[in-house]
Amino acid sequence: LTGATPATSFYPVIPAGGSGKRLWPLSRRREPKFLMPVGQGGGPNLLGQTLERLRGVAPVDHAYVVTGEAYARRIVEEAPGIDADRVLVEPAPMDSGPAIALAAAVIAQRHPGSVMGSFAADHFIPDEALFAEALRDAIRGAERGLLMTIGVEPTRPETGYGYIHYDTGSEADGVYAVSRFKEKPSLAVATEFLEAGGYLWNASMFVWRPEVFLEELRGNDPAMHEGVTAIAGAWDTPEREAVLVAAWPRLTKVAVEYVVMEPASLRGRVGTVRGRFRWTDVGDFNTLGEINAPDADGNAVLGTERSADARVWIDDGRNLVVHPASGKLLAVIGAEDLAIIDTDDVLLVCARDRVQDVKALVDSLAGRAREDLL
Amino acid sequence: LTGATPATSFYPVIPAGGSGKRLWPLSRRREPKFLMPVGQGGGPNLLGQTLERLRGVAPVDHAYVVTGEAYARRIVEEAPGIDADRVLVEPAPMDSGPAIALAAAVIAQRHPGSVMGSFAADHFIPDEALFAEALRDAIRGAERGLLMTIGVEPTRPETGYGYIHYDTGSEADGVYAVSRFKEKPSLAVATEFLEAGGYLWNASMFVWRPEVFLEELRGNDPAMHEGVTAIAGAWDTPEREAVLVAAWPRLTKVAVEYVVMEPASLRGRVGTVRGRFRWTDVGDFNTLGEINAPDADGNAVLGTERSADARVWIDDGRNLVVHPASGKLLAVIGAEDLAIIDTDDVLLVCARDRVQDVKALVDSLAGRAREDLL
Repeated sequence: LTGATPATSFYPVIPAGGSGKRLWPLSRRREPKFLMPVGQGGGPNLLGQTLERLRGVAPVDHAYVVTGEAYARRIVEEAPGIDADRVLVEPAPMDSGPAIALAAAVIAQRHPGSVMGSFAADHFIPDEALFAEALRDAIRGAERGLLMTIGVEPTRPETGYGYIHYDTGSEADGVYAVSRFKEKPSLAVATEFLEAGGYLWNASMFVWRPEVFLEELRGNDPAMHEGVTAIAGAWDTPEREAVLVAAWPRLTKVAVEYVVMEPASLRGRVGTVRGRFRWTDVGDFNTLGEINAPDADGNAVLGTERSADARVWIDDGRNLVVHPASGKLLAVIGAEDLAIIDTDDVLLVCARDRVQDVKALVDSLAGRAREDLL
Repeated sequence: LTGATPATSFYPVIPAGGSGKRLWPLSRRREPKFLMPVGQGGGPNLLGQTLERLRGVAPVDHAYVVTGEAYARRIVEEAPGIDADRVLVEPAPMDSGPAIALAAAVIAQRHPGSVMGSFAADHFIPDEALFAEALRDAIRGAERGLLMTIGVEPTRPETGYGYIHYDTGSEADGVYAVSRFKEKPSLAVATEFLEAGGYLWNASMFVWRPEVFLEELRGNDPAMHEGVTAIAGAWDTPEREAVLVAAWPRLTKVAVEYVVMEPASLRGRVGTVRGRFRWTDVGDFNTLGEINAPDADGNAVLGTERSADARVWIDDGRNLVVHPASGKLLAVIGAEDLAIIDTDDVLLVCARDRVQDVKALVDSLAGRAREDLL
């Protein structure tokens, strides 16, 4: 990969919490999205790909994962280079604010003077060199004391992402000043953003000195700052569990954007770099289809090498996302615009414009007395 | 059931030959269509339903089946009331002409002076009393020496069926004179038929004295007459196999309509009754859906009691034919106009306007080295 390793030690953090209900029945409570193999040929899972991507910038034994109890052991077993002492286990999910704040407090204590970054476990970024370049720029911004984001150059007026508004004239060493974070916009507003310029997709990738982040947190949510500082102080002692159990439930359940980044952006403390890499938030079967090299008819076959594929026959199908996960033959004649996900205990056939509704179906499983399928 | 048993002994014959490729993967070479349970609640299979329907008119031990070697044993095991000596095994499929001619020759020899009928194994007729009434009328016509058909009153200008043209002024005791058999018509021609009146769907249901049929056959295809007479003469002797193997391959491969009924109709030897029962030729997944009580959204669930059904969840689906034959949960969101057939080794998802193409897929299995799925 291009570029030199930054002078400051860099510690990536990967919050890996949710199971990914919109990818059910591929994802399950015990088979979360970030442990799913994704991409052609059934390569490494999303978490593994995320770690792999960061190796160009940070040694593999610098990476941290924040996760729930249900996944901690599997992550240690399956994620390359992740030791148990770099898996920070949340007693309960509290959104990204507490998860990232805990990581910042632990890293500040264990590795004072370092830079840390936070990267979602479920993003697909095929252009690893471009990503590493953007990350190095962001680290340099963090070294200057900024709370950095890595934004992604928008290629369409996407309404499913938040946006970062930056000052196009403020560039210094690849870093731009962020003026505002913007919520997911309407199509009209998103179109305006693209026409106006100066907007990036918010990919929830953050880079900062943990001390800077914690100072900002102290100003915005003193109780959370106090809580994660207490937990971090006890982390590498026999008191960890007792302090964690007492303090964790009292933290505010809030996204890191709200509790730190937005307030900081209003005071000129936030910078961004313009990521030019392709980036997909792997949230549903449509995005899973997009990153799996659809053929000329728009059909994407998941979980298998297309060339070696004797398990999927498509006769006149279009815009299909199919996954023959059960191993049986999957034959399609004349069907269009569907996700067809065939697992050992569930077959899902879902219109592609309804893939968001998979989550509601999963949420109904308990009520239908089918928790075994969760 | 209404009406008295006819005076003449009546022997129904059920040709049960084909596997039903258009219903693959439900139907297989070893699991032919006529042994498939069909209708709500996974009731009796099509052959069983056909036999059940005939019980109102003929004793159960009068029924004959003509089939291939692959199915003979299963029919004896699974069809109620069918003994091995009433299963006539064809050495090779030769269309309906030789199959029915063989049955006529055997019945003429075993039960001289009787009336026989021929009824396909794959028809769905929910109105059993109306069917029995039409059959009794047809038997009376046969007793008068006519080659009888049971036509079905058309309810739409169907282009998938042949038609029977009859003389509306010729009625005597429920029997009408047939003037012509008509091939499957265009939509325009079918519409004309319905407007003109005097047309019935040809449901390939025939009733006649076997001696009358054989005499007609002798005039049209003397070699076939000679062949089946020779086979029938040897049937209940140790020579059956030798005669059958020698004579069978030399018979003309032809439908009974062509070799007997059409020529006979031109000479005024054919009569028909107007069947007022609902009738479905169960040929593909569309017809299978129609006879399985689709709900208000047009969705039909096969092979399971809807009320007890925890295996199919349809959220906003329309005009679906689904069969959860593998036993796993089948969840559908927002899909329309599909057949979704989930078996243990094959999942088929087929647009409902493409169900005819299932046959081509099945025919390609050998070429794809997947004969195991036939």
